[in-house]
Amino acid sequence: MYPAGACTWVTVEGMSDRLCGRSRPGHFRGVTTVVAKLFHIVEPDLAFFGQKDAAQAAIIRRMVRDLNLPVEIVVCPIVREPSGLAMSSRNAYLSAEQQQSALVLYGSLKEIQRCCQSGERNSDKLIAAGKQIVAADPSVRLDYLEIVDPDTLEPLPAVNRAALAAIAAFVGTTRLIDNVVLEVLE
Amino acid sequence: MYPAGACTWVTVEGMSDRLCGRSRPGHFRGVTTVVAKLFHIVEPDLAFFGQKDAAQAAIIRRMVRDLNLPVEIVVCPIVREPSGLAMSSRNAYLSAEQQQSALVLYGSLKEIQRCCQSGERNSDKLIAAGKQIVAADPSVRLDYLEIVDPDTLEPLPAVNRAALAAIAAFVGTTRLIDNVVLEVLE
Repeated sequence: MYPAGACTWVTVEGMSDRLCGRSRPGHFRGVTTVVAKLFHIVEPDLAFFGQKDAAQAAIIRRMVRDLNLPVEIVVCPIVREPSGLAMSSRNAYLSAEQQQSALVLYGSLKEIQRCCQSGERNSDKLIAAGKQIVAADPSVRLDYLEIVDPDTLEPLPAVNRAALAAIAAFVGTTRLIDNVVLEVLE
Repeated sequence: MYPAGACTWVTVEGMSDRLCGRSRPGHFRGVTTVVAKLFHIVEPDLAFFGQKDAAQAAIIRRMVRDLNLPVEIVVCPIVREPSGLAMSSRNAYLSAEQQQSALVLYGSLKEIQRCCQSGERNSDKLIAAGKQIVAADPSVRLDYLEIVDPDTLEPLPAVNRAALAAIAAFVGTTRLIDNVVLEVLE
């Protein structure tokens, strides 16, 4: 995939340093470069990405739009276990106990969603409510819990339009992510 | 060409800071980004670039190779006036006197070529010989005169394989460029 002396990068600036990009410097530059290469090799009409990695999906959509790549990006919804845990190949690393702890990720997002539907619009307050759920399980170490614009990944001070609540947390040594879209119903 | 909020760049690292890229910071990042966009919009089988902008041609070839772009790059030879001056839209900015001065660009490259063919292989000595030709006309201000690898644009200390001698100089306020390939005939 990488010829000797390869030195070309595709970078989506700014967005690549937000959410998971802040925790994983250089990660999204690698993603966008290899995805651009793949698109050039395969020349697909459609490409499917999961909403679970919301930052990745937003960054790929931006890359495709900015560079006029002739491909349509389809973002596929998160699929959950009956428990609510977002499906991920990483869940196989979790013990039965850790799988129970991992439920606080979706739990915190549902709490934010509930508070939002009850009329709370202030992002700091919504995030604080979500963090309480995470803090209740000391075996979960929060990486981030943010409310951002779904397209630019920029933090939103208030939820007065479609917003993304996104979480990343470590359960043991396993880093898990999840997110929900907050809809404002007038 | 640039949607609102565009933040995606295609960068050929290292090479973009050499030759004209050193004199024009950020220039080649703009070139590679817009050329990638153009390729995605047009989806050409072949794309033609001039050897006169040797750095641009090398950088585009590297980008196409590194990103697996499905296009063949054809580099077209420099076309010269009967005087030897490399044809360029910028030549229209030159007075008759400046056109005469501009001949030292190709003159210096021919001198390097002549010294090389006479057996001189040391790049510093070859460049010094070329610079003497430029220095003979005080109305010409040298930007760079370098001997580099034609593919990587890295300076070559000696000409013991195919090398590129490249020059950029100001004649009045007009910046001109030219180059020749130095072949080593054993």
